[in-house]
Amino acid sequence: MPNSDAGHASVTVIGLGLMGQALSGAFLKNGHATTVWNRSTDKADLLVAKGAVLADSVRHAVTASPLVIVCVSDYDVVRELLDPLGDVLAGRVLVNLTSGTSKQAREIAEWAAQRDVAYLDGAIMTTPQGIGAADTLLFYSGPQSAFDRHESTLRSLGGATTYLGADHALSSLYDMAVLTIMWNVLNGFLHAAALVGTANVPAAKFAPAARKGIATVADWLSGYADQIDGGRYPALDSTIDTHLAAMEHLIKESEFLGVNAELPKFVKVLADRSIADGHGGDSYAAMIEQFRKP
Amino acid sequence: MPNSDAGHASVTVIGLGLMGQALSGAFLKNGHATTVWNRSTDKADLLVAKGAVLADSVRHAVTASPLVIVCVSDYDVVRELLDPLGDVLAGRVLVNLTSGTSKQAREIAEWAAQRDVAYLDGAIMTTPQGIGAADTLLFYSGPQSAFDRHESTLRSLGGATTYLGADHALSSLYDMAVLTIMWNVLNGFLHAAALVGTANVPAAKFAPAARKGIATVADWLSGYADQIDGGRYPALDSTIDTHLAAMEHLIKESEFLGVNAELPKFVKVLADRSIADGHGGDSYAAMIEQFRKP
Ligand SMILES: NC(=O)c1ccc[n+]([C@@H]2O[C@H](COP(=O)([O-])OP(=O)(O)OC[C@H]3O[C@@H](n4cnc5c(N)ncnc54)[C@H](OP(=O)(O)O)[C@@H]3O)[C@@H](O)[C@H]2O)c1
Ligand SMILES: NC(=O)c1ccc[n+]([C@@H]2O[C@H](COP(=O)([O-])OP(=O)(O)OC[C@H]3O[C@@H](n4cnc5c(N)ncnc54)[C@H](OP(=O)(O)O)[C@@H]3O)[C@@H](O)[C@H]2O)c1
Repeated sequence: MPNSDAGHASVTVIGLGLMGQALSGAFLKNGHATTVWNRSTDKADLLVAKGAVLADSVRHAVTASPLVIVCVSDYDVVRELLDPLGDVLAGRVLVNLTSGTSKQAREIAEWAAQRDVAYLDGAIMTTPQGIGAADTLLFYSGPQSAFDRHESTLRSLGGATTYLGADHALSSLYDMAVLTIMWNVLNGFLHAAALVGTANVPAAKFAPAARKGIATVADWLSGYADQIDGGRYPALDSTIDTHLAAMEHLIKESEFLGVNAELPKFVKVLADRSIADGHGGDSYAAMIEQFRKP
Repeated sequence: MPNSDAGHASVTVIGLGLMGQALSGAFLKNGHATTVWNRSTDKADLLVAKGAVLADSVRHAVTASPLVIVCVSDYDVVRELLDPLGDVLAGRVLVNLTSGTSKQAREIAEWAAQRDVAYLDGAIMTTPQGIGAADTLLFYSGPQSAFDRHESTLRSLGGATTYLGADHALSSLYDMAVLTIMWNVLNGFLHAAALVGTANVPAAKFAPAARKGIATVADWLSGYADQIDGGRYPALDSTIDTHLAAMEHLIKESEFLGVNAELPKFVKVLADRSIADGHGGDSYAAMIEQFRKP
């Protein structure tokens, strides 16, 4: 069995949903011999037309390549499909790009370790349309040797491919961490658009100010990160007490204008707790202690 | 009374808290004859040493300049100080840089209109340390002629000085709108840092991924803004239904790791409501309708 990534190494993709089809397409485009499998075989038609080989069983799909990618709806399906195949997966690299929790990643890692399967857990930080682009980010975690061996094949999926470390939990943690940031940025923007919308300002007109605000905060993050890691939060700019006064304005404003006031109230509850814990004179970074609590 | 901004026009600053001192300092640095007033006169000492003139009453401070800036703790103080001075404020431009709500801005605007005072409401999007910098953002709203007349003086306070329009509410709305974005970006980052922190990833190590995630979302905003303005939300990337599944992962993950799960639960409640309203197949921009509700 070939186990080097030199040249156009072969690869297997199990699961041809929207994402699995995009993954397979990117491998084919980069000249990799690509074997595919899907429960509903019709989803392979387009890929086969482009040169993919459709395996007639998951077992045959696995045995076709040293690198096996699985991307199905959830981890239960991954287990259901692969549990019986420990024997043929042994010695190969299994990369799981299905979304899940860190606990699920660690469970499969344990299963794989018992069967001599080199297991990488991964997370895809884009939609199927983004697969293959130069700035597309995918996270991988698990044994570094397995990543190194197949890095050039995996880079077909995204130019910002990033190896995070040996702990299998890291990919899903980073996935969840980036997602929570995304939803919060979006919710902040939508609340903001609702506020200025009450004065008939179109969201498109407000968007540049929003982007400037976002870029400003993004620049603070390294400084706050250092405070978080150091466990000390000197208020170099603004204290949580000062933030609180503005949060109260925002709640009043939201209520007065008839837009959603739950979001600013939630923001204030966290600040209230931080102040109750004695952090009123500290920087916003001290709020990390509230987020560390269940 | 001089009413042109040519050359180094004179200006009055009422209120010498942390912010008022920074404003006065920036005017002096730019060569403007600056008259100041503060309840506690000792806060003027440093500015007087730099060339400011300390007025012995608010009335004398107002009569010293065609442009009068007020920056005190809140709008009640603004009213308390200026209510008796309608006669001397008439014909001048009053710029209020005190933070407040859009309702308060409209109330002072009405008071000013009845007294022939040209009123600009403003918002300062930085800390005192940032005053005077090239990229510092201040918003102004109210009569355009008043802004135009004093624009070059006002630009001493920040190079990104922006006139928003005639509606006096706009400055405080933009202020609140940018602040809600900032707190939500920060909360997203802190929740994320708490998540990856459970795998002993330092916040500083995670920060670059956070910044990349933030930049990615910032790039989506114009497209979402167009959908919001158009009232149609085709899911070009991901549907709210798809987001929901990942939100459920995030709640599970947060609970399992013992970090704050209230934030993702709140995020999911909003998505649940949007789906209940029939937007499960739409893009995240459809969530604007939830934020427009009280
Ligand atoms: N789409 C995105 O934007 C995106 C982004 C990042 C991550 N992801 C993740 O990528 C994974 C796949 O997403 P997707 O968009 O490709 O989803 P999808 O279009 O719904 O595809 C689901 C896949 O799972 C298979 N499957 C489901 N139940 C099965 C079972 N019992 N036995 C065998 N196969 C089964 C489906 O097979 P059939 O075709 O036979 O139904 C299909 O191949 C998910 O974990 C998702 O969270 C997706
Ligand atoms: N600091 C910031 O980072 C920042 C950023 C953006 C916007 N702002 C806004 O700027 C405004 C001023 O903030 P600041 O940081 O300068 O606050 P500050 O340092 O607390 O100063 C408050 C000012 O208000 C005056 N004042 C309070 N009550 C008064 C009364 N009854 N009569 C007369 N004067 C009274 C104080 O006079 P005394 O000196 O006599 O007490 C002082 O000049 C606030 O609306 C704030 O929200 C501040």
